[in-house]
Amino acid sequence: MADFTLHVGTRIWSSWSLRPFMALAATGASFETVVTALRAPGTRAAIGGFSPSGLVPVLVDHRDGRDVTVWDSLAICEYLAESWPHLWPADAAARAVARSVSAEMHSGFRPMRMAMPMDLFAEHPGEGLDADGVEADIRRIDAIFSDCRNRFGAGGPYLFGTFTIADAMYAPVASRFRTYRPELSAPAADYVATLLADPGFTAWEAAALKEM
Amino acid sequence: MADFTLHVGTRIWSSWSLRPFMALAATGASFETVVTALRAPGTRAAIGGFSPSGLVPVLVDHRDGRDVTVWDSLAICEYLAESWPHLWPADAAARAVARSVSAEMHSGFRPMRMAMPMDLFAEHPGEGLDADGVEADIRRIDAIFSDCRNRFGAGGPYLFGTFTIADAMYAPVASRFRTYRPELSAPAADYVATLLADPGFTAWEAAALKEM
Repeated sequence: MADFTLHVGTRIWSSWSLRPFMALAATGASFETVVTALRAPGTRAAIGGFSPSGLVPVLVDHRDGRDVTVWDSLAICEYLAESWPHLWPADAAARAVARSVSAEMHSGFRPMRMAMPMDLFAEHPGEGLDADGVEADIRRIDAIFSDCRNRFGAGGPYLFGTFTIADAMYAPVASRFRTYRPELSAPAADYVATLLADPGFTAWEAAALKEM
Repeated sequence: MADFTLHVGTRIWSSWSLRPFMALAATGASFETVVTALRAPGTRAAIGGFSPSGLVPVLVDHRDGRDVTVWDSLAICEYLAESWPHLWPADAAARAVARSVSAEMHSGFRPMRMAMPMDLFAEHPGEGLDADGVEADIRRIDAIFSDCRNRFGAGGPYLFGTFTIADAMYAPVASRFRTYRPELSAPAADYVATLLADPGFTAWEAAALKEM
């Protein structure tokens, strides 16, 4: 039996599910992924069968035999970081910023999320970009990418050098930017390319293709 | 100089600010609270002067002389928990649930948050309760309160016995429930009373009164 079960939603759409998948992939732990179809008859009942919040993703940790259930993308990532501390930057000040930008994504950028939903293989250049608040969201995200890369990115191509939870949190944004094509600064565009080439992200894409 | 500066918004309204204030109060650390008036001319520029995200709350840690800036309510709480581990439950499985319900609050319950905004001393019984999605949010929150108290609350009156970040995250909900008065189960109502009597919460109320 795998150490973990990760319950996710339809991969092309479930931006929340992609995040803990990438974090889990970065741990090297054994896990199985169970997909529940979103936007289908019975979705709500199916998810209600395993998820306390009625939402995906949900992680079940089988490691010590008591099947610990953790839900919500960010809580799952923090839970994994207890066993794999490299999922956050090692330096306390960098880790503080990594947690800040991760939480900013977790509770924010609603205009962008509503106007530019994740649709993994779609191409809709320009769509949604002029909806209220979207431009400000994109500019703020561009500033986060540029600033983290500039201040903390010396050790590698990710926001804090090596892969951390902050990268997992922004991976759905990279997919959205590929689909809707907003203008980005050069550092932000480079970083988006890094996310789209991440092994966890490409594994998610490969599984999504098989799911279609 | 105090060890920390916590930037908050107008206390009667700023539900996001109340959370890290209560967590910080529970640490016993020295801190000063700086209030920026919300919904005023110049609010955006004033917050932009100290906040990378343009939002409150923001914590500045002065302890080791390098002034670490942390933003977002949940990121601030996690940052504090690195120095004060008692801010999360000691048991790993309980901590996993505490992080799950905290994150669920952080990214969710938007219908309730929109229809029942925090207004610390207001009384509007019944208002907002029939807006779309509000009843489902209240039922889920009631279930969280009852379930955590039942499974983890043996050691005290809080969700996980003693005070944790999960309580800080739900404190604005207690204020909302006092204002709008939805029907609650007995365990949930008891827990709301616990939050409203918490020393951090009553300190926030006292400061809010002086601010008016």
